[in-house]
Amino acid sequence: MTVTWSPAMAEAIEKARVEVCELHSELIKWGLVVWTAGNVSQRVRGIDGADDVLVIKPSGVTYDSLTPASMVVCDLEGNLIVGAHSPSSDTAAHAYVYRHMDEVGGVVHTHSTYATAFAAVGKPIPCHLTMMGDEFGGEIPVGPFALIGDDSIGQGIVETLKDSRSPAVLMQNHGPFTIGKDAKAAVKAAAMTEEVARTMFVALQLGDPIAIPQEKIDSLYARYQNVYGQH
Amino acid sequence: MTVTWSPAMAEAIEKARVEVCELHSELIKWGLVVWTAGNVSQRVRGIDGADDVLVIKPSGVTYDSLTPASMVVCDLEGNLIVGAHSPSSDTAAHAYVYRHMDEVGGVVHTHSTYATAFAAVGKPIPCHLTMMGDEFGGEIPVGPFALIGDDSIGQGIVETLKDSRSPAVLMQNHGPFTIGKDAKAAVKAAAMTEEVARTMFVALQLGDPIAIPQEKIDSLYARYQNVYGQH
Amino acid sequence: MTVTWSPAMAEAIEKARVEVCELHSELIKWGLVVWTAGNVSQRVRGIDGADDVLVIKPSGVTYDSLTPASMVVCDLEGNLIVGAHSPSSDTAAHAYVYRHMDEVGGVVHTHSTYATAFAAVGKPIPCHLTMMGDEFGGEIPVGPFALIGDDSIGQGIVETLKDSRSPAVLMQNHGPFTIGKDAKAAVKAAAMTEEVARTMFVALQLGDPIAIPQEKIDSLYARYQNVYGQH
Amino acid sequence: MTVTWSPAMAEAIEKARVEVCELHSELIKWGLVVWTAGNVSQRVRGIDGADDVLVIKPSGVTYDSLTPASMVVCDLEGNLIVGAHSPSSDTAAHAYVYRHMDEVGGVVHTHSTYATAFAAVGKPIPCHLTMMGDEFGGEIPVGPFALIGDDSIGQGIVETLKDSRSPAVLMQNHGPFTIGKDAKAAVKAAAMTEEVARTMFVALQLGDPIAIPQEKIDSLYARYQNVYGQH
Repeated sequence: MTVTWSPAMAEAIEKARVEVCELHSELIKWGLVVWTAGNVSQRVRGIDGADDVLVIKPSGVTYDSLTPASMVVCDLEGNLIVGAHSPSSDTAAHAYVYRHMDEVGGVVHTHSTYATAFAAVGKPIPCHLTMMGDEFGGEIPVGPFALIGDDSIGQGIVETLKDSRSPAVLMQNHGPFTIGKDAKAAVKAAAMTEEVARTMFVALQLGDPIAIPQEKIDSLYARYQNVYGQH
Repeated sequence: MTVTWSPAMAEAIEKARVEVCELHSELIKWGLVVWTAGNVSQRVRGIDGADDVLVIKPSGVTYDSLTPASMVVCDLEGNLIVGAHSPSSDTAAHAYVYRHMDEVGGVVHTHSTYATAFAAVGKPIPCHLTMMGDEFGGEIPVGPFALIGDDSIGQGIVETLKDSRSPAVLMQNHGPFTIGKDAKAAVKAAAMTEEVARTMFVALQLGDPIAIPQEKIDSLYARYQNVYGQH
Repeated sequence: MTVTWSPAMAEAIEKARVEVCELHSELIKWGLVVWTAGNVSQRVRGIDGADDVLVIKPSGVTYDSLTPASMVVCDLEGNLIVGAHSPSSDTAAHAYVYRHMDEVGGVVHTHSTYATAFAAVGKPIPCHLTMMGDEFGGEIPVGPFALIGDDSIGQGIVETLKDSRSPAVLMQNHGPFTIGKDAKAAVKAAAMTEEVARTMFVALQLGDPIAIPQEKIDSLYARYQNVYGQH
Repeated sequence: MTVTWSPAMAEAIEKARVEVCELHSELIKWGLVVWTAGNVSQRVRGIDGADDVLVIKPSGVTYDSLTPASMVVCDLEGNLIVGAHSPSSDTAAHAYVYRHMDEVGGVVHTHSTYATAFAAVGKPIPCHLTMMGDEFGGEIPVGPFALIGDDSIGQGIVETLKDSRSPAVLMQNHGPFTIGKDAKAAVKAAAMTEEVARTMFVALQLGDPIAIPQEKIDSLYARYQNVYGQH
């Protein structure tokens, strides 16, 4: 595929490669991934006539070896444009989300332990924490079981999230995908998803969590999103 | 707001900014916070005619980016006096505690996992550990459900702690707040709160914890507070 | 024992000592071992007429003190050929695997917490996660109880794994052994074993994990092994 | 107290101060302590006519601030001989163990999470792991409830351990104490105590751990102690 970019578009892509590379270290820092099992992408909006592209982790490369130059650039169909490695095998799912949710600028996928455990039993993470009201505006929903290889995962993510306040979905038997206005926001959502999954797991073992009235959740969410910006 | 401070007061405030900044790294070190979800403040007692002020974390800044200069200074109503960022959105709660508990010199708030799980089910952390007798003098109590935005959280903290030995309160569905004679003591209480929450969670899963007679708890508490000073 | 090697064989052995030494730090990094309780080995296939040898951790040396030069070289009966220390006390089990499974190039043993807990109750780790389908092709099986000191452990590993897709076996009351095409692949399997053990533990506490149909597991496994190579 | 030591005794004490200081960092490394809640001591056997002394952590000093010079030296009654700080408040218990168990050269006390949870419910950690057979020779027993301030804790430790193979005792409602031929061995026992407590906790949640026949435990213990030396 031959693509030409203006200097401004090329610079925006290079900036995204640096950011996406650095954000992978946050997945390690917050304990969200083991070995190579997680990936971050960011949309670069087209300028000077270019189409949008996405920057994502290369496939099968360990986190210690990641550099900005090793981040791959794909079009929004998931086709490789620039990169010495193949894109992450989850690229099709990321690309589908960018094609169908224009407001999304970043996507993250992990198999973080506690969130993935909720996904294995197919239960949403219930909202009994003010920090969940703030960040997720309610429970974190479960998406359908879907196999890798076509658009099934992407469709499951989009169908679950398009009518939800939550920036996170637990794909059944698989693990969480999170979205945000940029990659950093999606990484934050991934870190918070695991934290609330862990906290709610412990709470559910301790007894019956106390309900927070819906209007209080609405109030928390409205205030937080107003202060910190939409995800 | 225009405030003038004597050199001695200004120096005391700068010293507190250094200390409060450094103490945020302890929250990370002991695993008490994810992303930006925790804050430490310290009271600086007014000298040379100045009113007391509080030094607290700026809002929405990641822990890696914190510097002494980024710590903000507020009056005890929570109004910003000095700082390039807004104060933490929990400042009103900290300020309320300083106004109503004159012996308190430091306040810490986290969403640490196990303590927050007890808060989600509205159960106090029961005192079956000698280290709890030492540090907390009994169970760690639960405070009321309260929304951010007015003095409700501060009132709930003060009403729960004013007649308790415990330097920690679990605000229902929210998380722990801790107090101390200075910020370091409040951070220690936050670390110990999470540790005893985690230990008691495991104990409650293993079976029925053995009661410690009240007079033994009293003895542990009296000795420890005498040795290490009142919180 | 006197052995002579060609320069090429000697170089291959030195390369393996460097790799095996470095891979022990991955056991620490992913939280798989406490103190000295884990070991990694790699087969070096004989060239220029030499027999295969294995490179393994020395016995009772802490991880901080390991150097490539401290890695010991043994024949495939487990006899020491080169090394200032005794080989790991688990060497006989590693050697047995290499003698009986020619495709295996790396073996790892740990007592990682969650996998060892499944071993203590003698339950396989059930496959309710797409990442297990990918990496293990089904459940992680339990091997027999066997004492150290003869070939019992090695036999138990080989009998359990020879007809299984799984590169990991949980030896009853003992802990996991993993295999791979080289030591790095076996370390990856060890890290993934602990991760799926932890995730499935949490899932089993939360409720009934949802089954993944066998043909979906087959599909996941076929695709992943094709992309990333056989273990 | 005025004590004079030969150069050889003085050198042995300085060596112990370095070792005991460094071993405290192992408590942090293996996650055994929060804040200042753990301590390591080592006996220095008297030479050139001197009495035995013990080297122990100073009281209330954070782990980051520990230096060899800050380690305090006490006689075996627990009286301070050399040191700028008070000895750990647990010194009386350490000293009692050294006075009554001549083979013991190191003592460690922690409140490590899972071991302390077993102590809170007063249940021994049952031996369903080969690594427990190796290191502990059976279950880890529970000692009596005892308050700090006199010899009760020391007596409870000695009475529980003197007829046990285990180098660890869980003091009820309090936490583990471990012993060894030197401080390093006692620290290893403390790390292994927490690890087997955590593993057995998970196993007990998963189901009924499988029994290991007593003669197999005896065999594991005999072999391991022969290879690695008596604790």
